[in-house]
Amino acid sequence: MTQSVGYAAQNVAAPLERFDFTRRDPGPADVVVEIAYCGICHSDIHQVRDEWGGSMYPMVPGHEIVGHVTAVGADVTKFKVGDLAGVGVMVDSCKVCANCKASEEAYCEKGFVGTYNAKGYDGKLVFGGYANNIVVDERYVFSISPKLEAKLAAVAPLLCAGITTYSPLRHWKVGPGMKVGIVGLGGLGHMGLKFAHSFGAHVTLFTTSAGKEADAKRLGADEVVISKDADAMAKQKSSFDFILDCVSAPHDMNTYLGLLRLNGTLCLVGLPEEPLSISAFSTVTNRRSLAGSMIGGMTETQEMLDYCAEHDIVSDIELTSVDKLDEAYERVVKSDVKYRFVIDLATLKS
Amino acid sequence: MTQSVGYAAQNVAAPLERFDFTRRDPGPADVVVEIAYCGICHSDIHQVRDEWGGSMYPMVPGHEIVGHVTAVGADVTKFKVGDLAGVGVMVDSCKVCANCKASEEAYCEKGFVGTYNAKGYDGKLVFGGYANNIVVDERYVFSISPKLEAKLAAVAPLLCAGITTYSPLRHWKVGPGMKVGIVGLGGLGHMGLKFAHSFGAHVTLFTTSAGKEADAKRLGADEVVISKDADAMAKQKSSFDFILDCVSAPHDMNTYLGLLRLNGTLCLVGLPEEPLSISAFSTVTNRRSLAGSMIGGMTETQEMLDYCAEHDIVSDIELTSVDKLDEAYERVVKSDVKYRFVIDLATLKS
Repeated sequence: MTQSVGYAAQNVAAPLERFDFTRRDPGPADVVVEIAYCGICHSDIHQVRDEWGGSMYPMVPGHEIVGHVTAVGADVTKFKVGDLAGVGVMVDSCKVCANCKASEEAYCEKGFVGTYNAKGYDGKLVFGGYANNIVVDERYVFSISPKLEAKLAAVAPLLCAGITTYSPLRHWKVGPGMKVGIVGLGGLGHMGLKFAHSFGAHVTLFTTSAGKEADAKRLGADEVVISKDADAMAKQKSSFDFILDCVSAPHDMNTYLGLLRLNGTLCLVGLPEEPLSISAFSTVTNRRSLAGSMIGGMTETQEMLDYCAEHDIVSDIELTSVDKLDEAYERVVKSDVKYRFVIDLATLKS
Repeated sequence: MTQSVGYAAQNVAAPLERFDFTRRDPGPADVVVEIAYCGICHSDIHQVRDEWGGSMYPMVPGHEIVGHVTAVGADVTKFKVGDLAGVGVMVDSCKVCANCKASEEAYCEKGFVGTYNAKGYDGKLVFGGYANNIVVDERYVFSISPKLEAKLAAVAPLLCAGITTYSPLRHWKVGPGMKVGIVGLGGLGHMGLKFAHSFGAHVTLFTTSAGKEADAKRLGADEVVISKDADAMAKQKSSFDFILDCVSAPHDMNTYLGLLRLNGTLCLVGLPEEPLSISAFSTVTNRRSLAGSMIGGMTETQEMLDYCAEHDIVSDIELTSVDKLDEAYERVVKSDVKYRFVIDLATLKS
């Protein structure tokens, strides 16, 4: 077995504490990654606290993982020892369904195996990235360009927040000449601004907080609209090609649908837990679509990492340590971070 | 002025009764159509009874109009006296917005002028097709192929029920190799079956009524699923490319969203008045879209009429007369018609 150490919740009520555990011995297709950094995603908190139900303990969270390859199986072709590597939201999928074959593994018909709070197809619990190492089939490991090594901590959030915004912006072909809205400026929204701007669209941030305007413009917004200002919202009516909604708190979807022009799409990546109340007339007018999107597949996530290396795009982060996870969680819940916490796993050793 | 006679509701409580009125004298761009037949659309009933609010009386309903041209203005180029012609849901639009320029007049940014229960841009109330004639700008008049003359009454519903189903099936590129669902077998649904089948898709009808199976297959369904049968519905999970929802009564949209495969779309053309309750997870799974669609633009509606002439597609109708409108309305409300009533306007003369 592979000896590992990390931070885990032993049950729903327990704090995250140091945890010694084992992972499988690397098989012929496996890569062992020594983890340098792991991002803190809001979904880590939801799952640690069992807010979505069905949480499995002990739970080592973390699915925004970057580090260096320390061992490779005999059949591994993409990696060699010393390479930079990343692991995201999934560590396995069925590989044979139509979606897997199209490298849309996020939509695997059997259901992909999450990086943590999940069981592998062998029935064994898998552990995430708040740890010193991870063993993963190379198909589910990403190459990270040496160009990004100096900013490696800020690369970690690309593996979830990055691909979750990159994928729908690519799927709906966001580019020059398009008017694109990003709703909410947090971990997802700040990456949405960077990508939509980089793709050449005219980008508008919708936010409830007037104080975020300057930062939004620095991140790529051409315009900032305060969503509580009904007059300002009315001026945007029927003018957007695409809106990426990054807010998981309940909010009025019909207002945002009303901002879409002919054939426009409002895509959800923030996930409100309560059902959405949608007027059929909001969709029929201008033939609008309400869609949702998950993370991307393996090919697209690699494409995103390569795009980020080429265009010098990383997340805005605040580095934290394993002894400050509780504090970091509290600040994430209060949206008090610009814009993603990343754990420095070197702090595990001290 | 042009002398006209038709059937009108004088107020929300009044029955439809014979009504003498005038229309404008035909201008240089206008066509005068002597109406032979006019379909009865469920929206006629909603508007006569002011069920959507804002109804304007006196109201001559009717927007599924076919007949013969009896006069043309000096600048008219598309029509000559004696031609078959049709008029649908709109009789004017701004002509200058981006959507009008793209012949997406149904989505005119100024709002198109409806054929009845609407005011023209001159502020005057306009009257529909339960009448002997109509005067319309040729841009908003369709050519009907002589191939369809023998079935002219059954052509009338193509102008609303036909284009309302044809347009989304074309927009979402329904064709061979695709699995398509039609929800509900009524005026819209029966045209949806005919078109989806004609376009080469594998077509499944979803209905609450087991008794409709044979008829659905005659109309083009390859399969019929009783939507109240949870097991039968579960078997269809994540398998459809496109579903056209033709039902306006409240029903569970998440069940139908769950039937869509990767990148599938559920498009509403029936219009439930109550807000829809949509789970964000229903859209995120398989990157599904919930969309809406109206009638088509002028170019697309003409294309549909030409397609119908080429492929011998018309509506299944029951012919009725001006003295039986109340009975027809009651039967439409009870869904007791296969599948569209059409008024024979020759009965106006008696």
